Amino acid sequence: MHIKECIVSAPGKAILHGEHAVVHGKVALAVSLNLRTYLRLEANPTGKIGINLPNISTFLSFDATALQSPLPDRTADSRNAKELDVDLVARLRGFIGVTDSNSDTSTMAVLAFLYLYMSVFTESGELPGLTVTGSHRPPPGDLEHTARWSSEEMELINSWAFLGEKIIHGNPSGVDNAVSTWGGMLRYHAGKITPLSRVPMLRILLTNTKVPRSTKVLVAGVKEKIDKFPSIMSPVLESIDAISSMCQQTLNEMASEPMPEHYSVLEELMDINQHHLDVLGVGHPSLATLCRVTLGRGLHSKLTGAGGGGCGLTLLRPDTDPSAIHSATRELKDCGYDCWETSIGAPGVQQHSRSSVKEEVLRFLNH
Amino acid sequence: MHIKECIVSAPGKAILHGEHAVVHGKVALAVSLNLRTYLRLEANPTGKIGINLPNISTFLSFDATALQSPLPDRTADSRNAKELDVDLVARLRGFIGVTDSNSDTSTMAVLAFLYLYMSVFTESGELPGLTVTGSHRPPPGDLEHTARWSSEEMELINSWAFLGEKIIHGNPSGVDNAVSTWGGMLRYHAGKITPLSRVPMLRILLTNTKVPRSTKVLVAGVKEKIDKFPSIMSPVLESIDAISSMCQQTLNEMASEPMPEHYSVLEELMDINQHHLDVLGVGHPSLATLCRVTLGRGLHSKLTGAGGGGCGLTLLRPDTDPSAIHSATRELKDCGYDCWETSIGAPGVQQHSRSSVKEEVLRFLNH
Repeated sequence: MHIKECIVSAPGKAILHGEHAVVHGKVALAVSLNLRTYLRLEANPTGKIGINLPNISTFLSFDATALQSPLPDRTADSRNAKELDVDLVARLRGFIGVTDSNSDTSTMAVLAFLYLYMSVFTESGELPGLTVTGSHRPPPGDLEHTARWSSEEMELINSWAFLGEKIIHGNPSGVDNAVSTWGGMLRYHAGKITPLSRVPMLRILLTNTKVPRSTKVLVAGVKEKIDKFPSIMSPVLESIDAISSMCQQTLNEMASEPMPEHYSVLEELMDINQHHLDVLGVGHPSLATLCRVTLGRGLHSKLTGAGGGGCGLTLLRPDTDPSAIHSATRELKDCGYDCWETSIGAPGVQQHSRSSVKEEVLRFLNH
Repeated sequence: MHIKECIVSAPGKAILHGEHAVVHGKVALAVSLNLRTYLRLEANPTGKIGINLPNISTFLSFDATALQSPLPDRTADSRNAKELDVDLVARLRGFIGVTDSNSDTSTMAVLAFLYLYMSVFTESGELPGLTVTGSHRPPPGDLEHTARWSSEEMELINSWAFLGEKIIHGNPSGVDNAVSTWGGMLRYHAGKITPLSRVPMLRILLTNTKVPRSTKVLVAGVKEKIDKFPSIMSPVLESIDAISSMCQQTLNEMASEPMPEHYSVLEELMDINQHHLDVLGVGHPSLATLCRVTLGRGLHSKLTGAGGGGCGLTLLRPDTDPSAIHSATRELKDCGYDCWETSIGAPGVQQHSRSSVKEEVLRFLNH
């Protein structure tokens, strides 16, 4: 470990179009969400591995030497991050003392970190003292200096992130790690991920209705409805597919010269897809309220992700009246929802110099 | 004129599924609406033709002998009601003293009545004194004795009604007169009208949002949207087409043995189609309010007809809690809407004995 400290950040992810339809072989558009999670990695001379993730109330410390025992037998290859070493995961579970069935957020985060830590440093033959501290998700500062990685390095980051996803989710699509690595927007279709080469960054309001839901139950409900009314529902999936394609085409045009008409199209597509998602049965009164409240200010919204509550996106134009955003936000907060003004299509994983990171984030990372 | 008095009634019409889509070659289901218009025809010895239509503030009286002058030259054939005699329409316009461009409701109603009166009686060689009085649209009484017509007579009534439609609307589809003649439900597809042979009568709440709209503008807006997003909108029309077919199939099953699951399907189809109509751009906040208010009581609604305001249908189950209907109606009336509890799929044109008609209707017909 030659570098004393390293601060990185990665964006969140949202589905712009195609949630649920993607399960049935249709296109989905995934976008980065510029609420970033920051990580500070700090070499320490104590030989301890410290994991501080205050947003999920996780504060742990391990002796790096104690970790040697579950070291993989074979020589790990840090350039080959494709295959998950399930034996190592099992041994790490034993090391931190949790059963196979334990899959709470904190456990999975610690497992994923230790797996990556072990795999990356096994090659170097030593497990250095290292403290990792994560932030909550804030919007980035305006002028964050960032270092650039090569595309090979980005591929490597993505493949390690994918392994982390495998540990946490079992059978991930690879979309989440890809969006968080490369940022921007990408098209996902039948297992194939295609980053969109030229996309604009779009301002949005992200609203969390805080209505809890089960993605599994919602996905099953959609399938049931398709099975019940195939002739009615199949065309709806087709229409959603066409919405994703039309959106992709519009975003591509906007990258060179964004026009008000482009925003009108994006708004119409959001409205149509929101109705389609209602037809699929994944709407919710809280999301209907979000749409109605924002439409009252001329703003267009749709749910994002599983639906049935959860989060919604509201598109903001460059010239959207700030007072409209302000009054919509206030009314939504009065409904008990959380709102963040942020953007989609933002950069992917970034490395930051300490001096360019917002004070608020540093305070968090010095936790 | 051998009969002194004759009281008849005919139901109104609503579109259950397929409005707008029908303009683009898809199936529509038209249903009779059991808010009936009553007509009393009374022979009088004064030789006057009296037309009393209080609901459209029309009270006119003509000398039958003065009408002789615009009599058709050729011998009219009352069994041949297919072709509109445009010369007769023009001469009748002259007779009642209105210009060609005048097409207000009262003028068109009087023209249609005089045309039918002239055509029917020309064959007999004399124009008898006759007073016609129309009612507003009330629900029928519970036990109205009715006479039965033969299917040839029904065909004849329908063809005369179609001529009336031609006078009033110019280029009617023939659906409205067919539903009002035969009642029940019928399928309309690419100009072809097929009555559904076995359908249940269904209770509904009919709500008039009283939001004015232009059917022509709404139809044009749908076309514009289809032209703008063909790949997105064509599947929506397909889905609506499938909804009409599924509904027809369900109604057919219900005719023999209605089950709660049938009602669930009908409700789901209404919800889905309402979302599709929103996608076509013919929704309106007033209709969204109707859907939200009724859904709050477990009742499912959709717009009927052109949309953009206008009327909506709410399906009522046989076991729907009367208090739910009552409270929904009250809340809708507080929004400024009018509501009627009625039914769809009711009988078509009927002849009544005076003693079996409700007192309220008779009072109106004695106007």
